[in-house]
Amino acid sequence: MDLQRIAREIREFEGVTRKKPIAEIINVFESVRCEYSNSVVDFGDDAAVVDIGGDDYILFAADGIWARLINASMWWAGYSSVLVNVNDIAAMGGKPVAMVNVLSSANKEACKELLGGIRDGIAKFGVPMVGGHMHPDTPYTSLSVAIIGTVKKGCEIRSSTARVGDTIIAAYDMDGRVGPNSPYSFDSTTMKEAEEVRRRYRVMQILGERGLVTSGKDISNPGLIGTLGMLIETSHVGARVDLTEIPAPAGIDFIQWLKIHPAIGFVVTSLPEDESEVISLFENAGYRAAGIGSIEDTSRLDICCDGESTAVFDFDIDIVTGINQ
Amino acid sequence: MDLQRIAREIREFEGVTRKKPIAEIINVFESVRCEYSNSVVDFGDDAAVVDIGGDDYILFAADGIWARLINASMWWAGYSSVLVNVNDIAAMGGKPVAMVNVLSSANKEACKELLGGIRDGIAKFGVPMVGGHMHPDTPYTSLSVAIIGTVKKGCEIRSSTARVGDTIIAAYDMDGRVGPNSPYSFDSTTMKEAEEVRRRYRVMQILGERGLVTSGKDISNPGLIGTLGMLIETSHVGARVDLTEIPAPAGIDFIQWLKIHPAIGFVVTSLPEDESEVISLFENAGYRAAGIGSIEDTSRLDICCDGESTAVFDFDIDIVTGINQ
Repeated sequence: MDLQRIAREIREFEGVTRKKPIAEIINVFESVRCEYSNSVVDFGDDAAVVDIGGDDYILFAADGIWARLINASMWWAGYSSVLVNVNDIAAMGGKPVAMVNVLSSANKEACKELLGGIRDGIAKFGVPMVGGHMHPDTPYTSLSVAIIGTVKKGCEIRSSTARVGDTIIAAYDMDGRVGPNSPYSFDSTTMKEAEEVRRRYRVMQILGERGLVTSGKDISNPGLIGTLGMLIETSHVGARVDLTEIPAPAGIDFIQWLKIHPAIGFVVTSLPEDESEVISLFENAGYRAAGIGSIEDTSRLDICCDGESTAVFDFDIDIVTGINQ
Repeated sequence: MDLQRIAREIREFEGVTRKKPIAEIINVFESVRCEYSNSVVDFGDDAAVVDIGGDDYILFAADGIWARLINASMWWAGYSSVLVNVNDIAAMGGKPVAMVNVLSSANKEACKELLGGIRDGIAKFGVPMVGGHMHPDTPYTSLSVAIIGTVKKGCEIRSSTARVGDTIIAAYDMDGRVGPNSPYSFDSTTMKEAEEVRRRYRVMQILGERGLVTSGKDISNPGLIGTLGMLIETSHVGARVDLTEIPAPAGIDFIQWLKIHPAIGFVVTSLPEDESEVISLFENAGYRAAGIGSIEDTSRLDICCDGESTAVFDFDIDIVTGINQ
């Protein structure tokens, strides 16, 4: 494997580079954050953790659908808006509870297809759309969805809590296919029964409740390595990944696979002694999972293969999101 | 007053007519709604009511910012995105807890101004932005915000619960000025201290907790009469409004005032015996409030003045949102 090329391709991949403006945004809110004590706010997480009393935290997240995806397929954009929000809650070990949306479009046909996708997403993932807002008169079509979920206090899975010495585990629902609208997306849900899909998500709740993982994120647009980069950046740690250990399907170019946003896939860290239990829980829920490396006391994300090694990100120089509170 | 002209102008006002596509959207979700028992879903409300256990309901709402407003002023769009979401929670008698946003823009300068508006809104209304999503590469600029709040179970103020014989009360924070970006908006918050603004919102929590109102909504884009139209449509009742009783500032054309979206304004219903207490609670919190009519056993919203009367909406023929579950 050409490690230099792999490192460069990931670094320059649009799914990674378009995360950079996030830090600038967050800094704007820094100055007015301090007075709110009921939010365990950490912008590096997939969802915010809000304490309203009681035994559970409220998880709260939002996702917009990339304009490029909307233009490729309205149905898919609607369906994906549910999927990506459910992933945000699952990544935190939470149970999704309800969604709201904001839809803007002057195109009635587009709207119908989008709504059809949302409806099918609701049915598949089992989370109701309880409200929203419609702009019937915009020159563009856009869709934003927000989601709330719940997680037992103390069982939430964070992004900022990976520690040196932890094992890194990647888990993919690999029973699917590339596409349909991008070579960097991988569909593993439309062809499955709802219960099969929901079973995969529940494993993250189990991992959180049993305290088996030390941190985690859903693998999203930046792909596995890019997502891990975001995780270690917020955790202030380094990582070393053995590329030969990464679960990958036959028949897909390996670099392409590294950039893929799977419908259902997670990267988590665990204590080394919990690795095999985490992997078998994932595997029993329908994933292919493997230990792919370890959290290191560096400021780099290194990839290695056959004794060679190179840095994808060096956080002394690079940023992915720039979130490292 | 030319009642016919007033009725026609309200009926044809864009703030009212652009609400019509809502029903079509909701019908798409009808078919997949039944399996979710923890959501007290009513699309006619300003926020969804979600039961996650405990003493409180979670209120959950989303609002996008009208493209026209975004283009008029980025700062104002950001600020308003907080304001309209806080209004949604206040209208339900709730306490706002946290917001998330989805921001799309390729224009860095626009983003900065928008974010500055959001930051100032957070500081004014006292609700943190705990997360969100950024699309740095869209050809348009759009902003969606979602909010969660809490309300004691049984204290929530709904839109669908107005009953025949109730008094209709309008309350405006009238200490402000028209604009700045539309003749149909009225700013009463930018010039006030945060505590002055928050005091006005808290009155809705008090009204809900004391059970003094039977229904309510924040006065939004459709203006007072249009908003009341939405309320009675979801409540399956009629209404009669005496135009001479409506609180209105000197120096603003009356028809314009009826179309205005005030920064802080509510229309509520109460039992006739509670009317004076509701009005004095509003007045003590800084509003001008008055009983403006009553809920009737008709399917019309009638406006009257000096013994004359005409229908603005006849729900046997017209729809505002078409939501009348």
